[in-house]
Amino acid sequence: MTDHASITAKAALDAMFRPRRVAIVGASADATKTGGRPVNYLREHGFTGDIYPINPKVSDIGGLACYPSVAALPETPDAAIVLLGAERAHLAVRDLAERGTKLAIVLASGFGEAGPAGQVLQDQLRAAAGNMRLLGPNTIGAMDLHRRIVLSASGALEGKDLPQGGISLASQSGGILGALLSRATARGIGFAKLASTGNEIDLDLADLVDYYADDEGTRVIAVYAEGIRSVERFRAATERAREAGKPVVVFKVGRSEFGARAAVSHTGAMAGEDRVYDALFRQCGVIRAESFSDLLDIPAMLAAARPMRGRRVAVLTSTGGAGSLVADACGMAGLDVPLLDEPTAATLAGILKTDAPMTANPVDVTLAGVKPEVMTAATRALLASDSVDGLVVIVGSSALAQPEVAVGALTQGAASSQKPLIAYVSPDAPHILRHLNQQGIPAFTAPEACAVALEASRPLASVSAAAAAAPPAPPTDLRSGTLNEAEARALFARYGLQGAEQRIVRTPEEAVAAAQEIGGPVVLKVLSQAIAHKSDIGGVKVGLDAKTIGPALTDMAAHLAAQDAPGIEGYLVQQMLSGGVEFILGLRHDPQLGPLVLLGAGGVMAEIMDDVAIRLLPISKADAEAMVDELRLSRLLEGYRGSPALDRAALVTAITDFARMGESLGRRLAEAEINPLFVLPAGNGVAAADGLAVIN
Amino acid sequence: MTDHASITAKAALDAMFRPRRVAIVGASADATKTGGRPVNYLREHGFTGDIYPINPKVSDIGGLACYPSVAALPETPDAAIVLLGAERAHLAVRDLAERGTKLAIVLASGFGEAGPAGQVLQDQLRAAAGNMRLLGPNTIGAMDLHRRIVLSASGALEGKDLPQGGISLASQSGGILGALLSRATARGIGFAKLASTGNEIDLDLADLVDYYADDEGTRVIAVYAEGIRSVERFRAATERAREAGKPVVVFKVGRSEFGARAAVSHTGAMAGEDRVYDALFRQCGVIRAESFSDLLDIPAMLAAARPMRGRRVAVLTSTGGAGSLVADACGMAGLDVPLLDEPTAATLAGILKTDAPMTANPVDVTLAGVKPEVMTAATRALLASDSVDGLVVIVGSSALAQPEVAVGALTQGAASSQKPLIAYVSPDAPHILRHLNQQGIPAFTAPEACAVALEASRPLASVSAAAAAAPPAPPTDLRSGTLNEAEARALFARYGLQGAEQRIVRTPEEAVAAAQEIGGPVVLKVLSQAIAHKSDIGGVKVGLDAKTIGPALTDMAAHLAAQDAPGIEGYLVQQMLSGGVEFILGLRHDPQLGPLVLLGAGGVMAEIMDDVAIRLLPISKADAEAMVDELRLSRLLEGYRGSPALDRAALVTAITDFARMGESLGRRLAEAEINPLFVLPAGNGVAAADGLAVIN
Repeated sequence: MTDHASITAKAALDAMFRPRRVAIVGASADATKTGGRPVNYLREHGFTGDIYPINPKVSDIGGLACYPSVAALPETPDAAIVLLGAERAHLAVRDLAERGTKLAIVLASGFGEAGPAGQVLQDQLRAAAGNMRLLGPNTIGAMDLHRRIVLSASGALEGKDLPQGGISLASQSGGILGALLSRATARGIGFAKLASTGNEIDLDLADLVDYYADDEGTRVIAVYAEGIRSVERFRAATERAREAGKPVVVFKVGRSEFGARAAVSHTGAMAGEDRVYDALFRQCGVIRAESFSDLLDIPAMLAAARPMRGRRVAVLTSTGGAGSLVADACGMAGLDVPLLDEPTAATLAGILKTDAPMTANPVDVTLAGVKPEVMTAATRALLASDSVDGLVVIVGSSALAQPEVAVGALTQGAASSQKPLIAYVSPDAPHILRHLNQQGIPAFTAPEACAVALEASRPLASVSAAAAAAPPAPPTDLRSGTLNEAEARALFARYGLQGAEQRIVRTPEEAVAAAQEIGGPVVLKVLSQAIAHKSDIGGVKVGLDAKTIGPALTDMAAHLAAQDAPGIEGYLVQQMLSGGVEFILGLRHDPQLGPLVLLGAGGVMAEIMDDVAIRLLPISKADAEAMVDELRLSRLLEGYRGSPALDRAALVTAITDFARMGESLGRRLAEAEINPLFVLPAGNGVAAADGLAVIN
Repeated sequence: MTDHASITAKAALDAMFRPRRVAIVGASADATKTGGRPVNYLREHGFTGDIYPINPKVSDIGGLACYPSVAALPETPDAAIVLLGAERAHLAVRDLAERGTKLAIVLASGFGEAGPAGQVLQDQLRAAAGNMRLLGPNTIGAMDLHRRIVLSASGALEGKDLPQGGISLASQSGGILGALLSRATARGIGFAKLASTGNEIDLDLADLVDYYADDEGTRVIAVYAEGIRSVERFRAATERAREAGKPVVVFKVGRSEFGARAAVSHTGAMAGEDRVYDALFRQCGVIRAESFSDLLDIPAMLAAARPMRGRRVAVLTSTGGAGSLVADACGMAGLDVPLLDEPTAATLAGILKTDAPMTANPVDVTLAGVKPEVMTAATRALLASDSVDGLVVIVGSSALAQPEVAVGALTQGAASSQKPLIAYVSPDAPHILRHLNQQGIPAFTAPEACAVALEASRPLASVSAAAAAAPPAPPTDLRSGTLNEAEARALFARYGLQGAEQRIVRTPEEAVAAAQEIGGPVVLKVLSQAIAHKSDIGGVKVGLDAKTIGPALTDMAAHLAAQDAPGIEGYLVQQMLSGGVEFILGLRHDPQLGPLVLLGAGGVMAEIMDDVAIRLLPISKADAEAMVDELRLSRLLEGYRGSPALDRAALVTAITDFARMGESLGRRLAEAEINPLFVLPAGNGVAAADGLAVIN
């Protein structure tokens, strides 16, 4: 994002999605060539404004006047597509900017993604744009299917009647945009607007999400992301979409790529980059598509705008196997497929003219399901039932011969209720799939997709914004480098985080005195900023008391001396905690996405059991609550198997306190960690039993 | 499975899949009715043997003589389809059995699945069959697409040219069989044989797997299961398939249904029924399809019979986005997408006429990819590379206009190498998908499917059979009921499982003496068969010694008396273990699948962290090793973060010892559990620190 104060992103995207005049720089008269497509597509799809092809070698393209240069145009275009190669694109961009064009789309690849030489060209391109806004380079362009604006050279647009719908797509990859458009078209799923942002030297995914949030034709925003350039702007854009009631569905590629990371603490090894994206998406209230097909399935569901108010799904089928399959998939996704209530069962028995009790779910109407009036009445009865929040109707093999039975039941059912109503198409029947989607009834071929779509149609939990108050000022006396445990604990205490009672000692005599003062069992630890893992070198002894601590310190000192342990600054005598559950609480910086807070099972369990929750700073109290809820370990907080309930509220406060410390210290805090953080029985709070901090 | 000694399952299935004479009882002259289909389908698909329609109301069906009864047939049919309803099917079955028919297929539903009245009809049907074998009832029938035998009334067979292939299917659900056949046909994926077993009153999935293991036309066996009736026969059948080199792929529905369970111990709450199926499939070396689409995708891959010898996948693409998507999915599935070696990179640079280093993977040939010779040469070069074990070629949008480029590269590549070669089709292009599959090149539309298919094509790990030796005889003096901890530990010790040193005491004085004898810190526990969770009622005290144990016992006794704690038989003074990792080791009976052994994280962690491994009895040493490998907790065994390596070998032995105890005691052992089982540093073995056993 460069500074383009003179043309807002909104103005530029308005020029792109609703231009009156479009210039095509490098247009070819040969419609079979890539360079010939844009003019062709604009006309074919019904653009009614002015098209200015620019090509010094020809004077006419398909009956349109062709101009030798940007300067020669009769009027300033609102937007332009630049079809020139990477070497020459900047020349056209410069001319367009000089002419006052609001936005240029640069299709060529061979820029930043192609290495250092490409980066030079990319910098040149950016400079040439001046105040003009850019989409790309390395983009496939943009489309508005309602207004029939197609600014693209994508082969996916070839000769297709593209259905209109409520989904708008922002994709970093042009090829993926084309694939999604092609697949959606085959299934009868319609789009509103689509754009690929490519290398994003200017406009990016956040700009498009922000724009779509205001866009009248957009009901759902789908995003294909390879990475998020600005967390802050992405958070702001998704917040605007949320406020506008438009769900955002994101598929992010690169889940298996783990970049190199520099942090030395335990935390660093745990928070893979993709988890941080996961955290970001959760904080933004964004629905993350887990599989690539979800990126069409979920938006297709949400475009129907039928939120599911509970978890109870009914399945109506005339073929038992497929009904079980869908019910099972719903159960696996955490939805309920409960028995039906008595009034609904009685209604169904009446429809089916049977005395058998009809409480079973899936509702299997077997052969009676070939009668249209039975399927329609059953669909309506289930949608009207108080024990049903959403309905899946199975389209079985019998629909191959008589598609009107299931289709009629679905369309009439849809008119009778606002509850979610979807179809599972069991045999191969692309025509039925297309027809249903075109009728606004989401239809799926995977049982898992039915479950994912229904789950996604549940109303979004409200996302509470992080506290807007400025964080406290950082301490002025903070030294740089790795703090020793006592220093780290003192720093944490300034932000409200208390820990086990402790004393710094240097001699066995001081240790005995400290143990007497503290009382009860104590722990002895070496104090050194140079030793990251004290227990690995014999620098920790537990279960000591005033009698045993003196010799223990002497032993430890000798043992450490024998190993040439570095930088020993003294020893810590610490109250030995027990009776709680141990967590780890950490802060670190993701190189791409910024500072984050991390909660996990204490000791080595977070890593071993992969039980970690992450949020990016700043966080809200609701974020901290959600982090606690995410951990499997947190089941112990409720008082598991007769053990007492633990101080969950204090844990939540500790998380927000720690996060505030992260905000307060900003870039100065390279990383910090409490491991373990004891969560004690309810009313007794939490206590840090160790501490690590690295200050820049 | 009833006893049908006179006609083997193999003879009956031979009669079904290669009959010379087929009777159709209840055939209709109206080809549009279900009853009219079988005769029609047999002729349409090219059956050349004799067809005997039976219907007393007509004398001719489509030019074939129609007989009034089974008795009136000129010859004994090898197999028959019974189209009569549930009320009358048994009459035809009785007649067919009397006539000496080998097998009857009963299509009607309304039997056991329809409640008690149906169960009566089902018992009647079974009795009527006598020695004749039955498929069904509630089945859609069977087909052999190579021999063009279609014994079915499935609408999925209507007017379709069904591709032949190497996959044979056994499905409990007829509707699912139809759906799979319809979907496979649309994708150009061919089957060898298909059968649905329905209610399985006689022939079941295991019979079909066993038959397919010997079947010449079958390369891969696909199974759709709702439940496995006999673990023993299923294990035997899958073992025969494995010996024949035919992979078995199973999709099992009912993963989210957890039946009620009676066990009272911790273990009972953990082992959901579906996990036991998971264990069974692992022990059988069966590939479990995780999603429904995997049940076609994986067999389609395996039918190509190109095993992948390593984990290294190359991706060849002309469109960057889809390449990333597939590479990412491969990474998520645990496959590698490594950089290419220098010789391969040099070959690719030569093909692409570029000086750029071509080590990147995915290999993105961009616009050069539209040239057939480039794609073909690159495909061959990658398949020939020493750093590539399998190749995915991306079919992008450019293939919509020029399908021959990608298709040519794939078919020529396939001929050049035996490594796995698959296609990912990015835009909607059903014709390309169909064409590739028909050419024997597995083609997928989901990136995740590419990864699942490649992973499944890796050679199966050999499955080692459980020890065939008879288990030791059970002790003769074993009392019934819940054993107390000391009795349980004594029982376990008979099978080789040692534990912490312990003494049974009754008085504080005896406790002091015991603590002195044991030395070091000890644990005091109440001994009672009536108390399942001792610590919940204050019946466990840790960290005692000879000085503190006397008063501790007095306190505990008073505390328990105040609660009216039942059946106190004394107290246990036990060596207090530390320094190891705590596991849980359990035995229980799954109501459907039988006795099993379970390993998990000790204490409450197995349940909280969902870290449990299960195997059905009997188990092999390799099973025990695999159980250890499955647990996340087992990472601690290797000596995690500087802690010493633990006695993994002793843990494996403990698992097999415990399993042998289960075999030895058989039905007498209702459940048993050691929690915790300490795994001590290497060389120090394992030690049970608690014990529970319930004897029938």
